[in-house]
Amino acid sequence: MESYNGTPHTLTRFDDDLNSLRTLMMNMGGMAEQHFADALAYLLDADAIRGARAISQDYEINRLESSIDELAIQIIARYSPTANDLRTIMSVVKTITDLERIGDKSEKLARIAEEIGPTLRTTDFVSHFRVMGRIVSGMLHDALDAFVRLDAIAAEEIIRRDTHVNQEYNAVHGILLKFMTENPNSAEVSLRMLSCMRAIERIGDHCTNIAEYVIFQQKGHDVRHGELSRDKQRTQI
Amino acid sequence: MESYNGTPHTLTRFDDDLNSLRTLMMNMGGMAEQHFADALAYLLDADAIRGARAISQDYEINRLESSIDELAIQIIARYSPTANDLRTIMSVVKTITDLERIGDKSEKLARIAEEIGPTLRTTDFVSHFRVMGRIVSGMLHDALDAFVRLDAIAAEEIIRRDTHVNQEYNAVHGILLKFMTENPNSAEVSLRMLSCMRAIERIGDHCTNIAEYVIFQQKGHDVRHGELSRDKQRTQI
Repeated sequence: MESYNGTPHTLTRFDDDLNSLRTLMMNMGGMAEQHFADALAYLLDADAIRGARAISQDYEINRLESSIDELAIQIIARYSPTANDLRTIMSVVKTITDLERIGDKSEKLARIAEEIGPTLRTTDFVSHFRVMGRIVSGMLHDALDAFVRLDAIAAEEIIRRDTHVNQEYNAVHGILLKFMTENPNSAEVSLRMLSCMRAIERIGDHCTNIAEYVIFQQKGHDVRHGELSRDKQRTQI
Repeated sequence: MESYNGTPHTLTRFDDDLNSLRTLMMNMGGMAEQHFADALAYLLDADAIRGARAISQDYEINRLESSIDELAIQIIARYSPTANDLRTIMSVVKTITDLERIGDKSEKLARIAEEIGPTLRTTDFVSHFRVMGRIVSGMLHDALDAFVRLDAIAAEEIIRRDTHVNQEYNAVHGILLKFMTENPNSAEVSLRMLSCMRAIERIGDHCTNIAEYVIFQQKGHDVRHGELSRDKQRTQI
């Protein structure tokens, strides 16, 4: 076993390996961003090429998740990092679980887009989807950025943005409910629109999780269930 | 730094600490089981006392999640475990994230039960909920049991059970859709029933995750995205 408290040579190798771990996580993050953006482009702008990519892209993200888990274990076993570095590694391991779920939900979004995109784009709902998609894409990008820069202030601001996502979701939920009551034959398509909204809203939750891991490792204590924790009850159920 | 490859005395302390970690995880698992059972009892049998408990219980589960994360970091920092033991510790850290989400969803279930329980219990849907609740409760119990016994065969069987949950969910989804089309004024209550079904179905997904971590640590390789991985596309969206 090597100790990274040892020679400068070993320290460098530890730093290199930890950087590789972060780089792989950021690659996975970039894929998740791309995946989500492709699904939105398919849903909102009928971009079929990006749609096909969103549906087929999940394998690569899943493969990366397994590799990163394995690398994390190897790094810990090889260098016996300190508690602080362990917090970083644990945060990476937890973050990639959220990134994998973002990939899943983007794929789901693209599959629903295939069915209801044409109908959705003729309704007023599409503008709400655009707003929500833009907020959540920004959250994902900024959460990954905050992770790399270890920026707890930015992370806190990202967590606060989730409130807007939930407000938007609740607004659309109300409008869709009214629409369904007035147009009983639209129940199926309405349910699918609701599934889309929920997939986007859930991706926002995963971004909140990632932001919480940033604060966790930066401050060295757990904020996940504290005052800045997202208000889970605010979303319409 | 202590090495658990050292004296038998240190080995015992490492084993003790690892056992404490597992015990805390099982306590959290027991709470999640209780939480889910309480929410189901409120929804299906109007048990208001258990309902109140399900709504108020989340804090304790969240507190345990933070303590277990911290203990995992301390154990790794103190004993520099081998890759195999790290796999176990990582599996605990990942499992508790799923247990925390099961707690969240149980609380959500209890909150919806408060609103729609009386209506639900007058419909035929209630029997479907009972079936699904029973399958998923069994999955949760058996997944925790398989974790403690490191029983990969049992874990594989639990993953297969998720298919039944998805089939049941899809069946109810179809019936509810028909019901909504025929009873437009029931849209709101129907949507809430669907939310209940989805919360139960999602708890099934979390049980599948836990079962996958059992196989991951037992076999020492990752099955999460292999042939036994749950078929995420099977659920109605």
